Amino acid sequence: MARTASLSGFPEWLPEERLVELHVLDTLRRTFELHGFSSIETRAVETVGQLLRKGEIDKEVYGLSRLQDEEADTVPRTDPHALALHFDLTVPFARYVVENAGYLAFPFRRYQIQKVWRGERPQEGRAREFTQADIDVVGDGELPFRYDVEIALVIAEALNALPIPDFLLRINNRKLAEGFYTGIGLTDTAGVLRSIDKLEKVGPAKVAELLKEELGATGDQAQAALKLASIRTKDTSFVEQVRALGVTNELLEEGLNELEQVIAAAVQHAPGRVVADLSIARGLDYYTGTVVETILLGHEQLGSICSGGRYDALASKGNRKFPGVGLSIGVTRLVSRILSQELAKATRSVPTVVLVTLNNDDSWGAAQDVAEQLRSRGIATEVAAKAEKFGKQIKFADRRGIPFVWFTDDDGKHQVKDIRTGEQYDADPDAWMPSEEDLHVRVTAAR
Amino acid sequence: MARTASLSGFPEWLPEERLVELHVLDTLRRTFELHGFSSIETRAVETVGQLLRKGEIDKEVYGLSRLQDEEADTVPRTDPHALALHFDLTVPFARYVVENAGYLAFPFRRYQIQKVWRGERPQEGRAREFTQADIDVVGDGELPFRYDVEIALVIAEALNALPIPDFLLRINNRKLAEGFYTGIGLTDTAGVLRSIDKLEKVGPAKVAELLKEELGATGDQAQAALKLASIRTKDTSFVEQVRALGVTNELLEEGLNELEQVIAAAVQHAPGRVVADLSIARGLDYYTGTVVETILLGHEQLGSICSGGRYDALASKGNRKFPGVGLSIGVTRLVSRILSQELAKATRSVPTVVLVTLNNDDSWGAAQDVAEQLRSRGIATEVAAKAEKFGKQIKFADRRGIPFVWFTDDDGKHQVKDIRTGEQYDADPDAWMPSEEDLHVRVTAAR
Repeated sequence: MARTASLSGFPEWLPEERLVELHVLDTLRRTFELHGFSSIETRAVETVGQLLRKGEIDKEVYGLSRLQDEEADTVPRTDPHALALHFDLTVPFARYVVENAGYLAFPFRRYQIQKVWRGERPQEGRAREFTQADIDVVGDGELPFRYDVEIALVIAEALNALPIPDFLLRINNRKLAEGFYTGIGLTDTAGVLRSIDKLEKVGPAKVAELLKEELGATGDQAQAALKLASIRTKDTSFVEQVRALGVTNELLEEGLNELEQVIAAAVQHAPGRVVADLSIARGLDYYTGTVVETILLGHEQLGSICSGGRYDALASKGNRKFPGVGLSIGVTRLVSRILSQELAKATRSVPTVVLVTLNNDDSWGAAQDVAEQLRSRGIATEVAAKAEKFGKQIKFADRRGIPFVWFTDDDGKHQVKDIRTGEQYDADPDAWMPSEEDLHVRVTAAR
Repeated sequence: MARTASLSGFPEWLPEERLVELHVLDTLRRTFELHGFSSIETRAVETVGQLLRKGEIDKEVYGLSRLQDEEADTVPRTDPHALALHFDLTVPFARYVVENAGYLAFPFRRYQIQKVWRGERPQEGRAREFTQADIDVVGDGELPFRYDVEIALVIAEALNALPIPDFLLRINNRKLAEGFYTGIGLTDTAGVLRSIDKLEKVGPAKVAELLKEELGATGDQAQAALKLASIRTKDTSFVEQVRALGVTNELLEEGLNELEQVIAAAVQHAPGRVVADLSIARGLDYYTGTVVETILLGHEQLGSICSGGRYDALASKGNRKFPGVGLSIGVTRLVSRILSQELAKATRSVPTVVLVTLNNDDSWGAAQDVAEQLRSRGIATEVAAKAEKFGKQIKFADRRGIPFVWFTDDDGKHQVKDIRTGEQYDADPDAWMPSEEDLHVRVTAAR
């Protein structure tokens, strides 16, 4: 699109673009519900204390204050009771689960499709206001590992149903990585993960330098960590490759076993969609096991279109823990790309199938009756507002992208015209149906 | 519900409550699309300048500032370039139309369902974050009056499709009122409207006092204004009643004619749903003709559940004017009431129809295959995570509100059990279907 947003980082769609976004949202919702996920929404607003609970966050948060509140300037915006817009859906979901634990049946599975806000510098693929579509399963006390496998399969199915190019879920496991680092004698495992996370940006030589300079790794340790991160297999052969590195550690074994389960199931149920990629680290530190990033093949520079993983300690209430696993699709990032590269298009620009024309100005009431008859069968119908010349009324339908116009003459005879072909024929307002293709706007992929 | 929101004024729903909200949203969307309205969304954020453009606003606006922005405290929050959350969808829509005029086909009809924020004191029926569902039609230069009639009919149809008690659209016309006031010699017509707007709150004696004290009205003028405001008819007989007051004025005639058209069409197409109510004023000053408020019968103290009207001067681009007419449904207000008074309920609490149980722990993959077969026919299906005793798996389904459980024995024989009736029978994963009633969650009204 040639249009640019009037406020940088806050994209808005034209009606025909919105149809593509709606198609994406409807498809995700349908897939999630087919897998038994319940819809919830959380408020857009959290307390600053809630958002910062997990320590320093690397997201730019928008604080709120009432314009009419004259005392607002005297309260620091980082006061824990101050209000701010959420920057993701995982932290609010964890808060929701803790607050409503008494009303939920665990393991609780939910999807959540909402806008989030981050005051970052806008760039391609990065907006300040954007929509995320999350699925998570949260347990009470414990959550079987099998949900890690299931979540990956559901997301692969959901992405597969979208009008987008091929994608690849890159999956790793923090236990595997942390166990390995411990096994080779690197104890600041979070520090190693942070360095490995920079691999794609700065390359292996620079990461080796970081590991040595900042974490005191030896050359051998740095090389071993990089070797681990270079492993990438579409089947479970990564297990052998890791074993060949000769490191033994209990946590490493646990992680290997978990990742093997995810990849084995994916080979069966989502072939070609998943890779074990031992370079994946994820910046946020609440992940404790499975971690996932997703690339759109041929659009790698867009960044991850779906990320997440297992978090065992994000939500708790006293001694009660609510471990969870979840993935988050970057809907706005995907839709922006679909639109800017015309990867998919709506079959027409409006929901309307039929414009009922006016024979004369007094026929508006009768035209409404015809429209009601058509709508009762699910046919989206508008009525012309003025009895202009038929040519003008047809031109109006054409300009709006409405495929059919309806005529009723003074004797009550009805005809319908397909303005794309010019074909015109008698029709009964109580029986006429457009083709299945024309009944609803469809969104079709270019691929 | 016994639960209270953890942040006052920011309601959140439990999954089964959200199903009721989703039903309301889906029903509105379907009705709007059947009438040819296109979906759009605008960003949640506007500049303060844009929000205050129409002069002093009576809404409490939430300003935004980045927590990490150290200079933010030096910029006044009311700087016109500062960012703030929108407080309705009409002002952002007007901005969207002006910005995208070159890409829209006029008259442009759109629906918009989004959250809005107002930092007001929360009370029953008034939240700080709430969802509105708006429809508007906007013209380029001019907009035939017929759209005022149409918008009222579409909204009556939309509300009629919701699981709510009877409602009544109370419709007036500003031209009628302003023409009448001018006709009796009261020139500050906006001032008179503001006083009349208080009628329900303070009563006629107090309004008469206000008119006399603040606007210098004589006793006769005040009585005439109050007499006009007391007129209320379900048909077009209000015209005669106004004429009987003996005031002549051109604008009054125009307003009478317009309101007559709306009421006459409503008598035909939405019988019993609409009343001409000459006390309706609407606080916001951008309305120029038709004005609407809507009460839920038996729930009058909830306030208006749907309001709006004609605005001829809200959007303009140089000399180019974009007159519009629209109505806005207070979705959160309605849903809160539906839930608190149990006016409607979901038939179950989760989307899931079937839980596929596990015979033993190795059967998870095979269970996934069964689930895929069921989902391919649109049957929402979950797979158990652990091969617990069947009794425990059935109890899990029951606790989550899932109506059916599926069993596959070691010989591959399939059975399905309706856990509500206890009935269990052989079933083919490629053919079994639940009843239409069980296939999807439905929301049914208590009335």
